[in-house]
Parts: sequence; structure tokens; C-alpha cells
Amino acid sequence: MRIALIGVGLIGGSVGLAARARLDDVRVVGWDPSQATLATAVSVGAIDETAPTLEAAVAEADLVLVAAPMGQMPAVIQQVLRAAPENCAVTDVGSVKRPVIDAAGDDGRLVAGHPLAGSESAGVHHARADLFDGATWYLVPHERSHGTRFEQVHRFVSQIGARPTTIDAATHDRLMATVSHLPHVLANVLVEQVGEARGDDQAVPATGPSFRDVTRVAGANPTLWAGIYSANRDALAGQLDRVIARLSDIRDRIQANEDLTTWQADTADLRRLIVDKALTGDELVELRTVVPNRPGAIAELALAFAKEGVNIADLSVAPLPGGATGMVALWCPLEQSGAALALLAELGIEVVGGERLDDARRERGAAQVTLEDEGVV
Amino acid sequence: MRIALIGVGLIGGSVGLAARARLDDVRVVGWDPSQATLATAVSVGAIDETAPTLEAAVAEADLVLVAAPMGQMPAVIQQVLRAAPENCAVTDVGSVKRPVIDAAGDDGRLVAGHPLAGSESAGVHHARADLFDGATWYLVPHERSHGTRFEQVHRFVSQIGARPTTIDAATHDRLMATVSHLPHVLANVLVEQVGEARGDDQAVPATGPSFRDVTRVAGANPTLWAGIYSANRDALAGQLDRVIARLSDIRDRIQANEDLTTWQADTADLRRLIVDKALTGDELVELRTVVPNRPGAIAELALAFAKEGVNIADLSVAPLPGGATGMVALWCPLEQSGAALALLAELGIEVVGGERLDDARRERGAAQVTLEDEGVV
Repeated sequence: MRIALIGVGLIGGSVGLAARARLDDVRVVGWDPSQATLATAVSVGAIDETAPTLEAAVAEADLVLVAAPMGQMPAVIQQVLRAAPENCAVTDVGSVKRPVIDAAGDDGRLVAGHPLAGSESAGVHHARADLFDGATWYLVPHERSHGTRFEQVHRFVSQIGARPTTIDAATHDRLMATVSHLPHVLANVLVEQVGEARGDDQAVPATGPSFRDVTRVAGANPTLWAGIYSANRDALAGQLDRVIARLSDIRDRIQANEDLTTWQADTADLRRLIVDKALTGDELVELRTVVPNRPGAIAELALAFAKEGVNIADLSVAPLPGGATGMVALWCPLEQSGAALALLAELGIEVVGGERLDDARRERGAAQVTLEDEGVV
Repeated sequence: MRIALIGVGLIGGSVGLAARARLDDVRVVGWDPSQATLATAVSVGAIDETAPTLEAAVAEADLVLVAAPMGQMPAVIQQVLRAAPENCAVTDVGSVKRPVIDAAGDDGRLVAGHPLAGSESAGVHHARADLFDGATWYLVPHERSHGTRFEQVHRFVSQIGARPTTIDAATHDRLMATVSHLPHVLANVLVEQVGEARGDDQAVPATGPSFRDVTRVAGANPTLWAGIYSANRDALAGQLDRVIARLSDIRDRIQANEDLTTWQADTADLRRLIVDKALTGDELVELRTVVPNRPGAIAELALAFAKEGVNIADLSVAPLPGGATGMVALWCPLEQSGAALALLAELGIEVVGGERLDDARRERGAAQVTLEDEGVV
């Protein structure tokens, strides 16, 4: 398997280290606009070889991963798609997905992505093979993303240690505006406000741990983040409107000397729920299904699962004889298998077998789903 | 020296552990409304003995430290002042200072305080002797705080490892609204907004490190924090107004697709300036001065220094023969000694000697200050 990394900084470099450490028979070729970065990527072992141009890097690749700053991402994606082979999967790690998908048009080779991993320390010399271990890695197929490309990217992301999670572009971008881009803006604004608290000649006020925690992300990589704010400006402006409304409300309640004990306690509960959400090592159930063999079919299936909150922990795709249909094996958590079966039934997708399928059916209640019983297992 | 701790949770307990570990000839008596907390405080070694009532605890104390939740602080301070001896210094650790000083009226025994230290883990079983090491500990004397009481509290706070920093109540409360209370409100509001991003049946979104960092303080101890919001409601509402105005402005700039690279970079610089501000182990200069022997004189001096950003690292107070004046020795960083001399000259306070005074004079320029040269050193 030949992987091309376009951009070999912290993220690209960590992908290279993880792929070389964990995949068999892999060859990682890297390209980066900076020759110095490329040389470091070779010396830390993030890539096997460098390519003289982007085109040369992707020419014979099975999978291309683009790790460019968000501001440059659409142009780089187009350049990659022009040069990449027919059977190559193309993915990226950008923080905003709509501009990437728009740039690809209806090219089925693109399955956009976004790992929720990073570090305060940028640069390939901080790259680590375990950077993505257990991290959510969003996969954002578009309407015509090809099933086999989706499977390729899904498998690759799993192999380098991440937890692939399918999501649609609009939901992803709104979610990131809330959980990531908004926190950066709030942190910046708080820093400005504390800065203002200095008088002309006065010392900067001593700050405690809450200020340090809340503002840790303030002023992160300026070029990168200015690009992210711009790429996601509509969703981010919408989130800012909502946060301003909330702050105005709580400001009035504070001024009115309202007892905020319940508000504070509810927030503690809610944060616990949000942060502890990360799925743990559930027991997995395999569901084998037959789907129509057309572009976008698997993307639709994966997105439908995502919408119902059912995680696809793994999947494999194989065309069936005749070519009109394909076999898709999905692995999902045992506790979600009932929901998965109901969803497949709603979508009219045939379930033909799977490991622990009987348990899954029992859990769901056999009467509620129509199942073929000639299991393949 | 006999110290009474009123409230022996995380903060009170840590004060007790530090005092017992680092002071000679100290006896720490504790009182707490919870018998269980008192018993734990004894068992972890935070106090030497328990008292049956608050009044019994403070009856023979040289120094009383009140570590009650902010909501109860004013009433407890009044109860302590009614029971404490004439020569006892009374201080507290509350996050808002105006209500504490108002509760004390013009009682010269009170020198309010506030350590910028804490932990996510409340309770005396998490108390540590080194909790305050190097931490800023605000001292907030009022207009009639007695110099000797100020010195007692200043020395005690230094002895248990903290860095005493004098500040006036209004500045303190506004500063805390900005650097501490506002971050808590922002963290809570962000948690609410992410919580809302869940649909009715949808899974909670995966969150990355920026969300976790920014919201780490969200929902902190509900009773305690509701009390703080209430006690500092005017300053906090004012800070919320300002943050709302800032957010509205940046929202418009984002929506207009303005390039925010400079904003992001400036924020990074500003945060570095703010967080790196903590004074390091400067070389200290001693300045011996003569001040009028009346209540509030030393508090005024300390506040004037604070206003100019000159840190009093240590001080000692002694009445001079006749009783009309007192000798105050101040230690301040060498690099601030010029500013200190100028300030003392402005205040009409006589400088009568001190270690490295010649250096200090040279730095300031001898012509600019009038000094008595019969140094005591």
C-alpha cells in the first residue's frame, strides 16, 4: 500500500509515523512546500521518501491524506484530485468540511476527514505515532463518495489508532463551531479583557488556574486559526449569536442577585455527560448487509447510522457476483445493535448474517424487524 | 503562636498543614460546622486540636483565619470579631473582599486576604502543606487596618509559602470578576451551548482538547460559586457587559470574512505577557522607614506601593520610643527600589536606612529624593 502525505507537519507527520509503525507493506511518500519540513520528516522516520512535487507524490498512491492549513485546503484538494489515480482514496484533516467537499465537486474519490487530535506544539519534530490513539476521527463522505474509498479511509484511520465516526458536513461544521472554534474565540476575548484590566503603568494582574485553563488555546497558530474562522464563518457567527444571548441572560440573573446554585450544578452534570461521552471498548456485533452497488450508497448508510448515534466501529465492502449489489459487513457496539437492525429495516437494506446476530435480534425484538435467516456466518 | 482556623476544608486544612510544618512554636486549633471534617482535619494532621465552638477556637488566638464559603463569610467574620482578643489579627480567604470588609466595620484587627490557590478536589483530605507555595496571596487591608495586624498576616502568609501582594478591595473585586469569576461563567455557558448541540435523540458530540480545557472549571462547587457570583454581582455584571460587547464586535468581523491573523497573533502575545507575569525570585532591597503610629498608616503605605506595582516581599513593624511613630522595614525587588524610593518621598515618609540602599539610591538618582543619611544599618 502506497500512502501520500501532502503536508508533513504535526498531523501529517504523526499519520506517517503511525502508518509506518502499524501497517504491513506500507510505503509512505511525503510532499511539503517546505524542504526543511520534508527533511525533518525523513529524519524522524515519518516518511519513507520525499517527492519532488505534489503531483509526483500522489501519482501512484492508493491513499492520499492532505494536511494543509484550512485556508489553502480547497486549492490543494483540487490539485491532488487532478493528479491522483482512478482507484485512489483522497482524504484530508481540515477542521471545516464544507469548503473541502465543495472543492471536490462530485468526485467519488474524496472521503473528507477530521481527526479530533492535536497538540499545543506544532511541527513535525513533535509528531508521535500514538497521537490519534483512541481519538475520534470524523469521516465526512459526500453524496457521491465511493463505498470502496470510504472503506479504505475508514480502515486506514482505524489502523493508525483512531476511532472513525461518520458525520455529514453541515452537522460537522456546526458542531466544530460549537465545541472548538467558539472556545478559541472565547479564550481570545477573555485574554483581551484581562489585558485591558491593566492600567497604563500597572502590573498585569496575577491570574489563577481558571484563567490559565480557560485561555490555554488563546492565540493558537494565528495563520491556521484565521483560516479556520474564515472557512467556518457562517456557523461560527451563528454560535456567537447564541452565546451572546446566553451571556446576556445570565448577566441579568446575576445582576438581579438570583440564586444560581442550580444553574451551576446543572452545568456540572452536563459537562460530565459531554466529556464522559467517549465510547469505551464495547463488545462489537457484526451485521452483514447487501446494498446497491452505486456511488454514495455506503456513505448514505454510514450517515444514516451516524444520525441515529450508532457508531460503525469497523466495516468491510465487497462487490457481489453480477455487480449490481455489494456485501457490506458493519461492526457496531452490541448495545446499539438493536437500533442498527431497526435502521437497516427502515432503509430496506437486507441483513444476511453476522456474528452475535441472534443476540442483536433478541435485544431488538424479532417481531419488529424482517430478517432473512440464511446467515452467512 | 496560636492560630485558629475557622473552617478546615481544602484551604483551611492546607493552611494548617503548612503552618504546622513550617512555623516554630505554633499551635493550630480548628473549628468547623462539620464534626466529620474536624475529625479528618485532626487525623491528617492539619490541626493540633479541635474547639467545641467558634468562640472557644478564637478566644486565645494570635491569628484567626476564616475559610468559610463566600455566602456565609460576612456573618462568620462578625462572629469571629465579637469573640477574638484585642491583639488578634483576623483574616480570611474569601474570593470577594468588599462584603468581608463591610462586615468588619472599622475594626482594625481585620486584614482581609485571598490566596490564588485551590484545587479541583475540595475537602480536607486533599489538603497539602505546599498548596500555597509561590502562589499570589492578596492582602486587602481597609482604611483602619492596624499596622501590626497587617505585619502579622503578611508574615504568616509568607511563612506558609505564599507571595503576599497588597491590593485595595475595589480593584481586587473587579480583577477577580475578570480573571476568575468571568472564566467560570464563560465555561458554564459554553457547556450549555454544546449541550444544546445534541438533538433530542442524538448522541452527545465528541469534544476535543480545546473544549475540555476551556470548560474544566464549569460547574465547580455549586453552593460555593453561587455565593461568589452573588457576592461580586456588580463587578461581574460589568465584566459580562464588556465581554458581550467584545463578542458582538468579533462576531461581525468574522461574518464579514475579515482576516483575523493579527487578532489571533496579538492575543497570543498578550496571553504570554499575562501568564508569564509572575514575579520570579528577584534580589530584594530593604528600606527602613518611619511612619506615623496610627491605625491604617501601614495599610495606606502598602496600598500605595501596590498601586504603583511595587511588590512588598516582606515587611516588619516596630513602634519607636515615644509611640508617635513606628519603624517599618520593607523589602522590595531591587529593580523596583527606585520607584519605591520615589513613592516614599512623595508620601513624605522618611527613609532612614536599609540594606543595599546605596544601590537603590543610585538607581533612582540621588537628586530626586531627599534622604536622611544616618542609616540604621
